[in-house]
Amino acid sequence: MAAVDELIERHQETLTRALTALGERDYWSPYPEFPKAYGEGAAEEGKLAFEALLGSTFALPGQPATGELEGTEASPYGLELDISYPRSEVDELLAAARTAQGAWAAATPAARAAVCLEILARINARSHEMALAVQHTTGQAAAMAFQAGGPHAQDRGLEAVAYAYAEQTKLPAEAGWTKPQGKRDPLVLRKRFVVVPRGTALMIGCNTFPTWNGYPGLFASLATGNPVVVKPHPRAVLPLALTVRIAREVLGEAGFDPNLVTLAAERDREGIAKTLALHPDVRIIDYTGSTEFGDWLEQNAKQALVYTEKAGVNTVVIDSTDDYKGMLSNLAFALSLYTGQMCTTPQNLLIPRGGITTDQGPKSYDEVVADLARSIEGLLGDDARAAAILGAVVNPDVLQRSAAAASGEYGDLALAPRVVTSQEFPGATIRTPALIKVEAHKPDDRAVFLTECFGPVFFAVAVDSAQDAVELLRQSVIEHGAMTATGYTTSGEVEQQLIQACLDSGVCLSLNLTGGVYPNQTAAFSDLHGTGANPAANAAYTDAAFVANRFRVVEIRHQA
Amino acid sequence: MAAVDELIERHQETLTRALTALGERDYWSPYPEFPKAYGEGAAEEGKLAFEALLGSTFALPGQPATGELEGTEASPYGLELDISYPRSEVDELLAAARTAQGAWAAATPAARAAVCLEILARINARSHEMALAVQHTTGQAAAMAFQAGGPHAQDRGLEAVAYAYAEQTKLPAEAGWTKPQGKRDPLVLRKRFVVVPRGTALMIGCNTFPTWNGYPGLFASLATGNPVVVKPHPRAVLPLALTVRIAREVLGEAGFDPNLVTLAAERDREGIAKTLALHPDVRIIDYTGSTEFGDWLEQNAKQALVYTEKAGVNTVVIDSTDDYKGMLSNLAFALSLYTGQMCTTPQNLLIPRGGITTDQGPKSYDEVVADLARSIEGLLGDDARAAAILGAVVNPDVLQRSAAAASGEYGDLALAPRVVTSQEFPGATIRTPALIKVEAHKPDDRAVFLTECFGPVFFAVAVDSAQDAVELLRQSVIEHGAMTATGYTTSGEVEQQLIQACLDSGVCLSLNLTGGVYPNQTAAFSDLHGTGANPAANAAYTDAAFVANRFRVVEIRHQA
Repeated sequence: MAAVDELIERHQETLTRALTALGERDYWSPYPEFPKAYGEGAAEEGKLAFEALLGSTFALPGQPATGELEGTEASPYGLELDISYPRSEVDELLAAARTAQGAWAAATPAARAAVCLEILARINARSHEMALAVQHTTGQAAAMAFQAGGPHAQDRGLEAVAYAYAEQTKLPAEAGWTKPQGKRDPLVLRKRFVVVPRGTALMIGCNTFPTWNGYPGLFASLATGNPVVVKPHPRAVLPLALTVRIAREVLGEAGFDPNLVTLAAERDREGIAKTLALHPDVRIIDYTGSTEFGDWLEQNAKQALVYTEKAGVNTVVIDSTDDYKGMLSNLAFALSLYTGQMCTTPQNLLIPRGGITTDQGPKSYDEVVADLARSIEGLLGDDARAAAILGAVVNPDVLQRSAAAASGEYGDLALAPRVVTSQEFPGATIRTPALIKVEAHKPDDRAVFLTECFGPVFFAVAVDSAQDAVELLRQSVIEHGAMTATGYTTSGEVEQQLIQACLDSGVCLSLNLTGGVYPNQTAAFSDLHGTGANPAANAAYTDAAFVANRFRVVEIRHQA
Repeated sequence: MAAVDELIERHQETLTRALTALGERDYWSPYPEFPKAYGEGAAEEGKLAFEALLGSTFALPGQPATGELEGTEASPYGLELDISYPRSEVDELLAAARTAQGAWAAATPAARAAVCLEILARINARSHEMALAVQHTTGQAAAMAFQAGGPHAQDRGLEAVAYAYAEQTKLPAEAGWTKPQGKRDPLVLRKRFVVVPRGTALMIGCNTFPTWNGYPGLFASLATGNPVVVKPHPRAVLPLALTVRIAREVLGEAGFDPNLVTLAAERDREGIAKTLALHPDVRIIDYTGSTEFGDWLEQNAKQALVYTEKAGVNTVVIDSTDDYKGMLSNLAFALSLYTGQMCTTPQNLLIPRGGITTDQGPKSYDEVVADLARSIEGLLGDDARAAAILGAVVNPDVLQRSAAAASGEYGDLALAPRVVTSQEFPGATIRTPALIKVEAHKPDDRAVFLTECFGPVFFAVAVDSAQDAVELLRQSVIEHGAMTATGYTTSGEVEQQLIQACLDSGVCLSLNLTGGVYPNQTAAFSDLHGTGANPAANAAYTDAAFVANRFRVVEIRHQA
């Protein structure tokens, strides 16, 4: 246990600082988000490490495996990945987790937190390699893949570890209990409170943010003493395979069984997630993905706690602004970033038919739409810059929706998508956003824009008034869910209406963002990601409720 | 809001002290457990208030009602209660809750905590009246009805309020966020974190401990901003009807809608609980009762968070003791208290066939059983004293099991039950415990003692060894659930084995209790009631997990 003691000491300061950050909610991160902070040569080293993975068989020494799974990934940039992963039987992975769990369950919360922080530190040190793994599975552009796939994901992992530590140490490990009995001797007991992990956890990764959306559940479960089976999306295996391998290395070095964290890779639609999700050993499930499968998990995996993030329809209400240019450029960037392939990207922009007031005078609905279209065109006019913001189209489904928008299938185009060519990656599939004009009160239009249209397709929805927009936002969130809501208004009254609609429907609201923070971004240790209060998700990153039920406490009391 | 501010000030010290108690887990209670502490004349006043209720129509002014529900209660002491309660339609109660919820949701956690503490203070002041209501619905003896139905239940309510306050105020109400941008201006946001209640809660009360088991869920839901519909057991309506009426009075005086807390009384097996449990408005359910209905709720009420306490089989492992007399008297009292009708009462006593070691020399299995039987007989030899410990048989099902035990249906009787006559209540149904000798390895015996036999029927189970007992305890908890486990041993090795078995199976353990604390008692602010880690319950009173998901947080962020 010397190794563990050393890890506890090494990471004590980070853990303490993280616990303070959780309460303060100001900006904080221990993981630099600028690639250069990782030192001379780190980028090149990461590139070499990534290239060495291409065409290889990815080894996970010690994990039970029955063969190899060949190349399920396809880089949206056209790069050949051709990586094979171990193929493992569900029963063998779960048996290995059972074997592994005892010593990990018996470790202290402090020991588990320290091991998790060491895993995160090692992942952090390899952020350049991870960035390339994320870029070539998700299609995120290089800069975003570095930040969102690296340090920002690590922040969310650390946040979960800190919450897990705080929740597990809320009860004292030992307590005395002395109850006065008047003139008689008091009743005296000694009590111990022991954290008992719930059981094996399953983390089901997504295609677009395998690490950012995966780390909260993975680290929350691991830090509370549970083994974790990681089931990556077949198109985004590598970032989680690297994560699993690093976790296994650290666990092994610290004297624990590496099979506390295993990889369950599968071919597309093989169904291993369903088999795992219904297994009686699996007691916790974290999932990011489609509403269909998320709902299925919630309804069917009754032996497990199920934390889901599913589809939603994110809305912007545009009433008025004192920074018209800032609003347009903020929205243009928000819609363009990663080709709209974020669960937090606004989809519907609700604009009063009679226009809005701005610092540049009144603007009609048509003017606002045209100005936004121009703002997007300006932002993405240069192909190299466009590629750096858009990244690439993550999969054929998204490409199909972009094509459908281009063909006018969803409505009148205010901005048609355009093909962007990457010099660096000629095989990359890159599309600019489509902006479509629709009417809030036309049933055909509503059927279209009130469904999640994941990807670079956006709707400028003409509404009767700001009040009409607020009501549509409220109903949309209640019925279809949302990860984000956004508002632009200079009216105190409309602001209050917007806030109330968001409280009623349970969605987080960004107001009047015109600078360098975008509605689709949330920062660990400060912003909640989701609320768990509308159909888009049943949990949030990260709060006490996300962590507190992943373990239970058993009390042992003795007469003293 | 002046009324609320005054309440906040009035209860601030109690709340602060309660929050400290939650972290320390030493003995603490603001509600005296001795009847005399409530002052001269309080007992008489309570008696008069209770007697005024008999034969009356219980009024809940302002609650929607369509008629009256007549006398579903029958005192186990033979007293005529004959109280009618308002009959309300499910849809009307839920509609009234919807109307009521807005202002309560908008109140601060501090305001809600203060209102809840005022409700508890008023209930506390009427503990004598409540004691009689509890006694004549549950059959608890007077002293126990006073303590467990009054101050101890109030403790559990306060504990839930304190946890609710702590969890809701974990995030700051407001925070600034400043992210450095090198040489450029930092990014600055202002953020608000607003607690959003989950929605209407349903609390389903039980027959034996309507207040003690009901208050944690009721107050946890109310303090986190949710309206609560209280569905009492048809045989134990009065204690919760009084609770609801007091809650409504305090809410109304504080300027809130009394329909935040309503009573849904029904005839036995009318099925209103099922209708409520499946209603889309109901988002939280707290339940204590049968495994059958608890499992049904967990499987079917998918729109709600479901917290259950169900049946279990509680076990005592007897290996050795250095206080044989103390062990026997502790067990005799534990088995006798309230006729074994506590969810925490031990049912199975596992005793090595080869006997145990004690401070009075070795004792064979037969000697231990005979000595325990004698100890129970001694404790309950006098009818008046017996009645004061046993209370009365709560319902015909329990009486039937006592009769079945007496007839030898469950096995050989080491102690036959006897009818006790109460001078005070000649109509009371009172039975002493039956102690039955069974063999751990006989399949017929196992089928009997590994099923919950709620009431005054106990099994002295002959096992091969202490290790055999520990294994049987482990398997029994994993398969059949348990609220408590108890052990007597002077061996460090057996103690460690016992602790490990309890950690593995997820049950709280009381070790070597020989004095005035009994395995079936847990104290608020110190002991956990249940673990949520075995089939007997999916939650514990009270921890963060019991409270943290009854509300969600919505973030509102502005560019600063």
